Amino acid sequence: MIYIDKHTQISIYEQIYISLKQEIFSGSLKFGDKLPATRKLATELSIGRNTVDKAYQQLVAEGYVTAILGSGFTVNKIAPEFPLPKPDDFHDYIDKSKTQSCFIRYDFKYGSIDNSIFPHKQWRKSINNALITMESSPYINYPNRQGESSLQQSISTYLRRSRGVSCSPSQIIITCGHQYSMEIIANMFESSSRRIAIENPGYDGVRIVFQNHNYQLTPISVEKDGISIDSIQDLRTELLYLTPSHQFPTGAVLSIAKRHKLLQWAYNTNTYLIEDDYDSELRYDTNPIPSLQSLDIHGRTIYAGTFSKSLSPSMRVAYLVLPPSLMDTYKRYYYRYNSQVSFLQQTALADFISSGNYEKHLNRLRTFYRKRQNALLTAIHEVLGNTANISGEGAGMHILLTIKNSLSQDELIKRAERIGIRVYSTAVNYMNPMDCPHAQILLGFATIPISKFKPILQELYQVWNED
Amino acid sequence: MIYIDKHTQISIYEQIYISLKQEIFSGSLKFGDKLPATRKLATELSIGRNTVDKAYQQLVAEGYVTAILGSGFTVNKIAPEFPLPKPDDFHDYIDKSKTQSCFIRYDFKYGSIDNSIFPHKQWRKSINNALITMESSPYINYPNRQGESSLQQSISTYLRRSRGVSCSPSQIIITCGHQYSMEIIANMFESSSRRIAIENPGYDGVRIVFQNHNYQLTPISVEKDGISIDSIQDLRTELLYLTPSHQFPTGAVLSIAKRHKLLQWAYNTNTYLIEDDYDSELRYDTNPIPSLQSLDIHGRTIYAGTFSKSLSPSMRVAYLVLPPSLMDTYKRYYYRYNSQVSFLQQTALADFISSGNYEKHLNRLRTFYRKRQNALLTAIHEVLGNTANISGEGAGMHILLTIKNSLSQDELIKRAERIGIRVYSTAVNYMNPMDCPHAQILLGFATIPISKFKPILQELYQVWNED
Repeated sequence: MIYIDKHTQISIYEQIYISLKQEIFSGSLKFGDKLPATRKLATELSIGRNTVDKAYQQLVAEGYVTAILGSGFTVNKIAPEFPLPKPDDFHDYIDKSKTQSCFIRYDFKYGSIDNSIFPHKQWRKSINNALITMESSPYINYPNRQGESSLQQSISTYLRRSRGVSCSPSQIIITCGHQYSMEIIANMFESSSRRIAIENPGYDGVRIVFQNHNYQLTPISVEKDGISIDSIQDLRTELLYLTPSHQFPTGAVLSIAKRHKLLQWAYNTNTYLIEDDYDSELRYDTNPIPSLQSLDIHGRTIYAGTFSKSLSPSMRVAYLVLPPSLMDTYKRYYYRYNSQVSFLQQTALADFISSGNYEKHLNRLRTFYRKRQNALLTAIHEVLGNTANISGEGAGMHILLTIKNSLSQDELIKRAERIGIRVYSTAVNYMNPMDCPHAQILLGFATIPISKFKPILQELYQVWNED
Repeated sequence: MIYIDKHTQISIYEQIYISLKQEIFSGSLKFGDKLPATRKLATELSIGRNTVDKAYQQLVAEGYVTAILGSGFTVNKIAPEFPLPKPDDFHDYIDKSKTQSCFIRYDFKYGSIDNSIFPHKQWRKSINNALITMESSPYINYPNRQGESSLQQSISTYLRRSRGVSCSPSQIIITCGHQYSMEIIANMFESSSRRIAIENPGYDGVRIVFQNHNYQLTPISVEKDGISIDSIQDLRTELLYLTPSHQFPTGAVLSIAKRHKLLQWAYNTNTYLIEDDYDSELRYDTNPIPSLQSLDIHGRTIYAGTFSKSLSPSMRVAYLVLPPSLMDTYKRYYYRYNSQVSFLQQTALADFISSGNYEKHLNRLRTFYRKRQNALLTAIHEVLGNTANISGEGAGMHILLTIKNSLSQDELIKRAERIGIRVYSTAVNYMNPMDCPHAQILLGFATIPISKFKPILQELYQVWNED
């Protein structure tokens, strides 16, 4: 029997639909039973026949009943052969990883940036221009698979001028982040023997991608002038990943002599070099170091760039420049995949770069972070004096600090945290965390105001020198 | 010898840097040679000593020379042991895939949508709100790994109300597109035995992802009421992918009886079901079909949604709802990966949904496409009469048409193209393209104005019935 309530928020159609479903599930209506005729039910309930019909049609669409011409609606066989067992452990997932953290006043986290330097006005203008472009088009399509050509064009022009990278726009692949660029490479080379050599220490966010894809990883040690060339002489690998312009995390610059040797080696051994150029725009003591790709006349370099450091980590736009010899491999794998980045974001970014605002922003950024790094270095010298060694200065948004007392890295971090200051370990950057130098910590300084460096270091000095 | 030209656009610093590099490469300056003293060179060239020093420091940073305290700058050994060979085949990549297409007046391409129905005003407002949020924050961080919590929250509320999907926001993973959702699943299950059963015919964009990840694919045939349950009884697989609410491309709805049997089977065999709910909002003859996930009390369903059909394919936002039992696997694989979607896009979308504009848009969308589909169906009946069979109507943005004359699918498509009308094959949806029904074509109708359907069909009728 169907009861309806005309005074609830649930529509009459839905009430009929729900009651009939319940009758079917409870067994009141069985396989083969007929539903009441629509006309009859409508009269009984004093409602329109259309409403009943709509409810019946919904039950038909979902397979509860079948409409038989001239004979009305009959219930289908729907009970499972075996009754469904009672739910055992199906609950909403509770995210246990969200532990409460103690109160942190200052966080030297690497990767976050200061919002005050972001060119909000110009970015808003570019977003607005992109919205206008979107609004004026007759259709909405998927963005181009590899990337919108306006963005490929503006990146290639920028790279040629400022990084010496030589490529046509069609060699550029727009991705939703540096790790997803690496994922593309990992996928492309999966059918060959899955070997990659990586800098050690190096960026763990890249290492994890190749580990996840079951690559065999060979760590290559890093010297003062970049990765050790001696270590690769007898190496057999398909890929070598490096950060030649600003080694992460040591800050080393790969010397010109090593660059030539490396390119020669890559050519001789048919290895592809992955040049991660993540923050090369941010060099303070000199001009940016020309890219490795710009010296490579044999097309052995895969150039990987990102806007996470130079513009915003929240933007999620990175790119690959593939050498011509890899374009076919790429297309074979990805010919059927859709783009990773929204049309809005790509079009706004293309506008932002081609208007010249990107390069203006980079110039401001360099000055901004140069001052900030200098202030940090000055504060360290003043407060920690010769109880600390600094490395990795002169570029980027982080430095390495080695504290010369008896405390371990772990203890240094814990004591800092106790007074609300978070500093970071570099253990994660080592293939074997035990190789991490004793008492080395990483300071990302992009979000700490200049005026705070000295008081912070004074607090750190105190807590690190307590008994 | 260094010459400088004070009348070019190249800075004096750069002229010195370039000439010294050239002298090193040409061999005029050899390993061990000293650079001229900065003071001496500055006087010679009548320029500031700082300018010379800047050029020298750049050469030091790049490893061309070494500064030796008290003794000036000496040239490093940089020539490679073996001279670099001449470039052989390194040219800019020419994209040959961009063939010119003949003039197409009407394109029944599936996936593109009509821009006139997109809620530009409301979207602009949400983008603006997101920009304000961005502008007012002190730092810019990477977006949350799994997705911004505002978007997870608004999606989970929406799914619960409109799709019956039961989940907590922390089970939702925001991705940059449906294929990248599938990529996450493919990666998560890679360590088990890599088997997946898929609908046949089915969506090729998903099939290719699992093929690329070297999964063993088992095709499951599709009947009038969804995938064949008989075919899976003895199947052993980890994953089964299906589109239960609107099978692609046939349009079948998985009946309630089959849903129960399927869930029972998944529970008994420990299989995960991937429910692709790509366009369930767009149902015209009845209300949307409740999701498979809503019936699943054992957490065997991975629910996959996208905004490509319901909002815009250019937006590149999709999501997964993982069952609780898979959250740990997901986190083990992805704990170190950054988000795929920009903060701007996620925040704007969360605003758009929670403001109610998304559901208002869906209602307008349904009416809009219902009318368009009806107009197309009417035109087909009128013009093609019983020379054509229609299937897959009542939902979505495409229908299937089977032409009953002697022409093959290939010939039908070619003849249409000859007169500037593009219609599509469904061969790509079959694991074995030879299984594709003779003379079946797919019409995506989202971008063709209603007034054009009749004239287009008249043209098609003519060209398909010529001798």
